[in-house]
Amino acid sequence: MTNTTDLRGESIKVLDDGFVRVVDTMGDDSSIVQAARISYGAGTKRVSEDRGLIRYLMRNRHTTPFEMCEVKLHVRVPMDAWRQWIRHRTANVNEYSTRYSEAIDAKQKTTPESWRVQSRSNKQGSGDYLAPEIGKMLSDREAELHQLDDTIYQERLDAGVAREQARKDLPLSTYTEAYWKIDLHNLFHFLALRMDAHAQYEIRSYANVIGNEIVAKWVPMAWEAFVDYRLEAMQLSRLDQVVINLLLAGKVADATEAAKSFGWITEDGDGLKANRERAEFEIKAAALGLTPTWL
Amino acid sequence: MTNTTDLRGESIKVLDDGFVRVVDTMGDDSSIVQAARISYGAGTKRVSEDRGLIRYLMRNRHTTPFEMCEVKLHVRVPMDAWRQWIRHRTANVNEYSTRYSEAIDAKQKTTPESWRVQSRSNKQGSGDYLAPEIGKMLSDREAELHQLDDTIYQERLDAGVAREQARKDLPLSTYTEAYWKIDLHNLFHFLALRMDAHAQYEIRSYANVIGNEIVAKWVPMAWEAFVDYRLEAMQLSRLDQVVINLLLAGKVADATEAAKSFGWITEDGDGLKANRERAEFEIKAAALGLTPTWL
Amino acid sequence: MTNTTDLRGESIKVLDDGFVRVVDTMGDDSSIVQAARISYGAGTKRVSEDRGLIRYLMRNRHTTPFEMCEVKLHVRVPMDAWRQWIRHRTANVNEYSTRYSEAIDAKQKTTPESWRVQSRSNKQGSGDYLAPEIGKMLSDREAELHQLDDTIYQERLDAGVAREQARKDLPLSTYTEAYWKIDLHNLFHFLALRMDAHAQYEIRSYANVIGNEIVAKWVPMAWEAFVDYRLEAMQLSRLDQVVINLLLAGKVADATEAAKSFGWITEDGDGLKANRERAEFEIKAAALGLTPTWL
Amino acid sequence: MTNTTDLRGESIKVLDDGFVRVVDTMGDDSSIVQAARISYGAGTKRVSEDRGLIRYLMRNRHTTPFEMCEVKLHVRVPMDAWRQWIRHRTANVNEYSTRYSEAIDAKQKTTPESWRVQSRSNKQGSGDYLAPEIGKMLSDREAELHQLDDTIYQERLDAGVAREQARKDLPLSTYTEAYWKIDLHNLFHFLALRMDAHAQYEIRSYANVIGNEIVAKWVPMAWEAFVDYRLEAMQLSRLDQVVINLLLAGKVADATEAAKSFGWITEDGDGLKANRERAEFEIKAAALGLTPTWL
Repeated sequence: MTNTTDLRGESIKVLDDGFVRVVDTMGDDSSIVQAARISYGAGTKRVSEDRGLIRYLMRNRHTTPFEMCEVKLHVRVPMDAWRQWIRHRTANVNEYSTRYSEAIDAKQKTTPESWRVQSRSNKQGSGDYLAPEIGKMLSDREAELHQLDDTIYQERLDAGVAREQARKDLPLSTYTEAYWKIDLHNLFHFLALRMDAHAQYEIRSYANVIGNEIVAKWVPMAWEAFVDYRLEAMQLSRLDQVVINLLLAGKVADATEAAKSFGWITEDGDGLKANRERAEFEIKAAALGLTPTWL
Repeated sequence: MTNTTDLRGESIKVLDDGFVRVVDTMGDDSSIVQAARISYGAGTKRVSEDRGLIRYLMRNRHTTPFEMCEVKLHVRVPMDAWRQWIRHRTANVNEYSTRYSEAIDAKQKTTPESWRVQSRSNKQGSGDYLAPEIGKMLSDREAELHQLDDTIYQERLDAGVAREQARKDLPLSTYTEAYWKIDLHNLFHFLALRMDAHAQYEIRSYANVIGNEIVAKWVPMAWEAFVDYRLEAMQLSRLDQVVINLLLAGKVADATEAAKSFGWITEDGDGLKANRERAEFEIKAAALGLTPTWL
Repeated sequence: MTNTTDLRGESIKVLDDGFVRVVDTMGDDSSIVQAARISYGAGTKRVSEDRGLIRYLMRNRHTTPFEMCEVKLHVRVPMDAWRQWIRHRTANVNEYSTRYSEAIDAKQKTTPESWRVQSRSNKQGSGDYLAPEIGKMLSDREAELHQLDDTIYQERLDAGVAREQARKDLPLSTYTEAYWKIDLHNLFHFLALRMDAHAQYEIRSYANVIGNEIVAKWVPMAWEAFVDYRLEAMQLSRLDQVVINLLLAGKVADATEAAKSFGWITEDGDGLKANRERAEFEIKAAALGLTPTWL
Repeated sequence: MTNTTDLRGESIKVLDDGFVRVVDTMGDDSSIVQAARISYGAGTKRVSEDRGLIRYLMRNRHTTPFEMCEVKLHVRVPMDAWRQWIRHRTANVNEYSTRYSEAIDAKQKTTPESWRVQSRSNKQGSGDYLAPEIGKMLSDREAELHQLDDTIYQERLDAGVAREQARKDLPLSTYTEAYWKIDLHNLFHFLALRMDAHAQYEIRSYANVIGNEIVAKWVPMAWEAFVDYRLEAMQLSRLDQVVINLLLAGKVADATEAAKSFGWITEDGDGLKANRERAEFEIKAAALGLTPTWL
């Protein structure tokens, strides 16, 4: 019926020791169409119409037919990324238990070239990489810490300490594993947030694999619609629209006035003060081919 | 892998014009075991051990492995029963839309023998059946009403009224259809509530079909465990335990005293006043082979 | 601390016999800020900064701080609108039970001027109003049907039929009541969908009251941010952006070519065939001050 | 209206450096009654009847009225316990972000007397305490590890590493803080699982504080009903009932036969083999005053 059998079994490597593997899927593009037909009446007969219907559903946020597809993944991921992952509440989860079993003997390691500098513009982000000499020193210290982590965990187990307590000082870089089962609508929501450039590198790596290498093959029509209407869509706020409208009408002074009233434009000594919302607007405008000038 | 293919496609009749049909399933008994192994470590190797593990999980309310199975049903059900059904929030739903399409031309009808009397003991329940002569009169009136319902709905459509408004006076007995997708843990919760003797006859009819004719075949080990540890389990409150303990110790006076302190026993003129919690206790005690006497 | 006390108690009329009433609220604008501070660190000190922070959160879809506000409403609404309402799963609900009590003796009535014509362009919508003479006839028939509905419901109760069965033919226009409790983030989601022009008139009436008359007063800063960044935001798809970019660069032929490749432009005998996505694009373009011409 | 004001503000200490603090509440016992009245009709007038109604709701698992109460807590908890906590999906959460801010400089420490031995009977549990001399050695090593954790975290920050990456090796014992908002029904579910003797000591400590020191004061009637009908209730499986029935009828041989058929009784060389379900049964029987003998 579907070719998802091909998706199963292959384990796709992520980070230094993680993976994503498809355990099972329910439904495919045709299931979305089938469900939409129940809701919206008879409808389409040909595959070309299926694509149009799926795109219509995505464009108009008729989300329930996408919930009719389900995927179950087996993932291996550092606990730190898993902490973010698990915040998506609409999923079913079975995680490896370090109460029942000894912790997985693997920790995410950082190569000397992979240490990221704290972003200045974005409190939650990171920017360029540190110089490799400094990175080398940090990676050595990381190895030293992991060594002590392992030794002390083992000492506790050897002394007879309960696994649930012995694990208390495991580092967040420790890999965990889980079965994670989610419907396609909620998976798209996860991907929209976690494939975003602002998502942390680690979880973004998993999201990219799930999106580009699994969902794109599993439900190609839905994936294409998701990319066109959500992932690469641009949101223009009411404010953005006001300013664009004035700029396109050639009313630069009025546009500037509006921007000022929105608090986008304030002066300090040396001219225009940095303003995040204005900066975001300018990026959007540029993508549309507009270069706003402020008077 | 599983024999659930056999479950698909067959449409099982419920009520006078309803049905339940399996559209798709994900997983089976072995998927529960597989997920439990991730959480609880290596574990079982033989089918006989699978059964034991599944029973262990059910008995100890380790519910997440049951969430790893998913079923998608196509149901046809009167809107009134659907109103109760939809209250179970942890499910995915695509319902037939009477905004997009004309309403389904079928209403639940009541035969003369099927009119139920309001229960006296249970404000929300029903008891015996009305005499067929009275039932005949009620069924005739029902037919008359359905006739007028149909005529007026058609008049509105003929006059060009929007479907979303024309439907406003459809009776709750009108059949609707839906795709309903749910994981096994939440389905068990639905079944525990809706197979219960206090559930309304209509939705109970659907729950019985889903439980006995679908789930029992789909995941036979999980179903058996559900019956043993939940559906036919008995809950003894702290109060129940106190009284049983005293009764088994032969301390009838103390048991009566305890029952009084719980408010189970109060007198009015003609002796023991009816008390619902005491009545429930007596049913449970009887099932265990105890006949409490109160002093 | 907050002035929400003023919101409580007042019952706001909706439709001919419905209402919305605030039972209780938890939190206000300052609670959103307080929660954001926990997540995003120290932060703001002045009210002017509170507004900026709330707008930042809304703009960047940091949704969890909005979940820290909760509102409990008492609503009275026709069952047909309630059927749509209840599809929003992330809420707590206690609905009036017609198993326990006799049905509320009120049905939504339609005045002769209020019968809406089926929309031709939108399968799920309605357009203009029918002529009042026709409306008069339809309203008379509605009254006749409601009369028979009432009579038969009463006959059943008089004959001793259980309430749970007597109600089976109540029309969807019957009013029901419920307590509905929801957090602000999920309420915004409800409002975004139900204040939309495509939502059915009845539920839109409730959404407008909840939004404009309750939320706007309860959390004025969050409401303003919601309007600016969600309710009145415009979504430009990847396709929309491609075409706008070409149009702004004056490349009309290329824009037309792109539109053709998207399937927006196809000819039938008499010129450009109607296409819904192109029509939606043209509306968005017009709002920005662009009038696309296709070659 | 309620006296919950008294609950707010006080921060209750848990573990060595954690706490629970009530930020806000919505509703109280009377709100449960109020919501039940909407669902189940007119009802009670006096406080004594309120208690009876609340107990009736709890006994019969009419859970929705309990959802009408909401509580918001501010908690400080080691990440390891938080990992379990966050698995309860039906709650609103704002957690302290170590992407935005430096990690909280506090880790759960273990005194020499507090190291727990791995349980033999229970794969996930712990039993007695290790001898203090061994504990002393383990606590010293713990301090040594925390010291290195701190030093390396600081080295990374000093080198300019992004906070989101610097945190990667923080130990699970690191304290985090969160706002956690949940309705009373789901809180009871949390408490039933986490106040249980099988829950890990750390999270159980929080659950006990929340239950005994907060909920018991906030909604005393609901709390009492919860204790009587859920927390201290006993579940008898279908199997348990069969055996009790036979034992009470004096049919010891039949009871033994039944137990054998359930797999509770198998022999190995030295007599009765350990069986977990039989052991659980014997504990329940003993609580009821029965001492089963097997033939």
